[in-house]
Amino acid sequence: MTDAVAELEAKGKAAKAAAHKLAYLSTEVKNKALANIADDLLARKDKILAANKMDCQEAEASGMDKAMLDRLMLSPDRLKSMAQDVMTVASLPDPVGEVFDMRTLPNGLLIGRKRVPLGVIGVIYESRPNVTIDISALCLKSGNAVILRGGKEAINSNSALASTVQEAATRAGVPEGTVQLIENTDRALIDHLLKMNGVIDLIVPRGGEGLINFVREKATMPVIAAGLSVCHTYIDQSADVAKAVAITYNAKVQRPSVCNALDTLLMHADVAQSQLPAIAAEWAKAGVEMHCDERALAILKQNPSLKLAPATDEDWGREFLALVAAVKVVDSLDEALEHIERYGSKADEAIVTEDYSSAMRFLNEVDAACVYVNASTRFTDGGQFGLGAEVAISTQKMHARGPLGVKELTTYKWIIFGSGQVRA
Amino acid sequence: MTDAVAELEAKGKAAKAAAHKLAYLSTEVKNKALANIADDLLARKDKILAANKMDCQEAEASGMDKAMLDRLMLSPDRLKSMAQDVMTVASLPDPVGEVFDMRTLPNGLLIGRKRVPLGVIGVIYESRPNVTIDISALCLKSGNAVILRGGKEAINSNSALASTVQEAATRAGVPEGTVQLIENTDRALIDHLLKMNGVIDLIVPRGGEGLINFVREKATMPVIAAGLSVCHTYIDQSADVAKAVAITYNAKVQRPSVCNALDTLLMHADVAQSQLPAIAAEWAKAGVEMHCDERALAILKQNPSLKLAPATDEDWGREFLALVAAVKVVDSLDEALEHIERYGSKADEAIVTEDYSSAMRFLNEVDAACVYVNASTRFTDGGQFGLGAEVAISTQKMHARGPLGVKELTTYKWIIFGSGQVRA
Repeated sequence: MTDAVAELEAKGKAAKAAAHKLAYLSTEVKNKALANIADDLLARKDKILAANKMDCQEAEASGMDKAMLDRLMLSPDRLKSMAQDVMTVASLPDPVGEVFDMRTLPNGLLIGRKRVPLGVIGVIYESRPNVTIDISALCLKSGNAVILRGGKEAINSNSALASTVQEAATRAGVPEGTVQLIENTDRALIDHLLKMNGVIDLIVPRGGEGLINFVREKATMPVIAAGLSVCHTYIDQSADVAKAVAITYNAKVQRPSVCNALDTLLMHADVAQSQLPAIAAEWAKAGVEMHCDERALAILKQNPSLKLAPATDEDWGREFLALVAAVKVVDSLDEALEHIERYGSKADEAIVTEDYSSAMRFLNEVDAACVYVNASTRFTDGGQFGLGAEVAISTQKMHARGPLGVKELTTYKWIIFGSGQVRA
Repeated sequence: MTDAVAELEAKGKAAKAAAHKLAYLSTEVKNKALANIADDLLARKDKILAANKMDCQEAEASGMDKAMLDRLMLSPDRLKSMAQDVMTVASLPDPVGEVFDMRTLPNGLLIGRKRVPLGVIGVIYESRPNVTIDISALCLKSGNAVILRGGKEAINSNSALASTVQEAATRAGVPEGTVQLIENTDRALIDHLLKMNGVIDLIVPRGGEGLINFVREKATMPVIAAGLSVCHTYIDQSADVAKAVAITYNAKVQRPSVCNALDTLLMHADVAQSQLPAIAAEWAKAGVEMHCDERALAILKQNPSLKLAPATDEDWGREFLALVAAVKVVDSLDEALEHIERYGSKADEAIVTEDYSSAMRFLNEVDAACVYVNASTRFTDGGQFGLGAEVAISTQKMHARGPLGVKELTTYKWIIFGSGQVRA
């Protein structure tokens, strides 16, 4: 066992010991810890920004692109906003201790379920240092210990932030060892981390498909992650054109590189002629390229300012993560539902309609983590959903779907109050 | 692709198609299907019992032992009791469609979660044919399609039962394909089944450790199963001796071969002298062998009628599944909690005490699926917990802990009602 592995094992052991105490720590202490973290992020601003400056300088020297560099960079304003996010998490109800399904059985046993933390959560993530704070805050609030493994490029920032969290939390009475940062960013240590299934109860990879697939394959403990996320927006026969234009524009253009951005636009044939040109014209202003089926192409080709291409079979069920959308004309809501069932990835799906029955059918029949009526799929986000923040967005069905907030970082135990009962 | 694999794939495809419709089938239709199943189990009694007789004759000829043979055998009374169990499931509230966490966000979006079925559930199980009915009933009620793979020794019984279920359910309007039985019991087909992750949303192995480990290792979809289950009962300083004797006797003796039976008895030192001899004497009547630590041995060795052995290190954390128990004297509740934390498997743990604070500390601090005060751990069971029946008992933390009833066979989706909202 190398020193680095021994150190990782020690961090795991410390996190597990802390988790055992954290499970029944009072809400008051947890909220005090969160308030301390928010205070310290501002009080220790100079130290944190100096550490971040080191990361940014190294990243710039190594040729990191502007967009990535911007994600890495902290500023007084960004620290202030991080502190506010921590206070939002503090203001959420504590999920731990909630008792539900409580009832008395015919034999007199009083039985129910009590919400408890998962235990130790491991998170592997990339560049943005604010993730260190978001995840620490969510884990603390939900009574979990956390082992953080941030990106190499943010290591100085993450060290400064993690030690801020550790000191602030300990001062409030949170057990030492609750928040652990793996400072050695050697990739081989991730392999070891993924084998620590006696220590880590849940591992969450946040990052590209490569990281997620690697973790799913190698991890010996449960994994929650976002997989492929192909988002459809269906414009129904009765759609309001203004809503259709605004929603499709926002869903495709507001941040095209993320998982909840629109991938495929489905247009009901009855409104394709009247609404598709308006949607396309708006998209064209942002430079959106459209991969169209024959009927959509026939409608749009009159406008020479559009970036059009004939759709190929690969365009259906494709996650573009760029200013590209597939466009298809369908003859009915049923055809749209079938298309989504066939090509969707059970992530985020939307209908634009003024028809009540169409709206309800879409909500009921589409099997996806988040199903929208008359709203942009871009809302799928812990902050937007009122969960404070998110550890990740799940596209799986088991345990949690959509954004993982504090409640999703818990499980339950059955509690049974008896008076001497035995089984017949 | 062999014919058997093609047939399996076809069953999977049919189950998936059925699941899509089942997800929004009315409670009325599902309950009618369950009532039909209960009726038909009795109406088709002769056919089912004849099929079961074939299995039992073959099993007897092949030298199956009496206990196993008894598990395999059906009778008019057992069919009646199976029909009653189906009606119990029918009487449970339908978990599907429950809406929770519903609220209006500041931007006007109305957002909440709606409970939905998991989809297609695969279950691999052994001998007892009533499992075919229990699982079909729970899956139907929770709106899931199911692929059943029962044991080879029960194949004729399972075929007769599954076709009874299929016909009864279809008559009520349940989509065809909802309940699938794999009739080819070639083990190689299990390998293929475990790779069908695009079709099966959850796989549940019910059986021995070998089967469970095999499934955990090979399955490409999520698995829920019972792992090792080491159960402690701790007799506190203030325990009532009558309760201590009755509870430990029941927990160890009532059915020693199952996972929720007592494995280790922890005795507070202050009552070891006064209560342990009574517990041991009662156990001795049933032939329980005790593996004792030094202090327990010193107390018990005066009674020559006891089967005693000094405990070895391997006795702590061992699941006996037999009339054997490990016995240890501890000096405090804290020591008992530490022992359980170290050697327990987070399954079923109990305290016997008359002290309120000890009871509450035990309930709060023990991390296990089911934590009992003054009751036998043998109650961990879907039927006993009021869940009607169970698909399996989970010892994992994610998604579901303890008995898997209808609610545990569901997940949720976020539903969002907008009026044109876009993300800023």
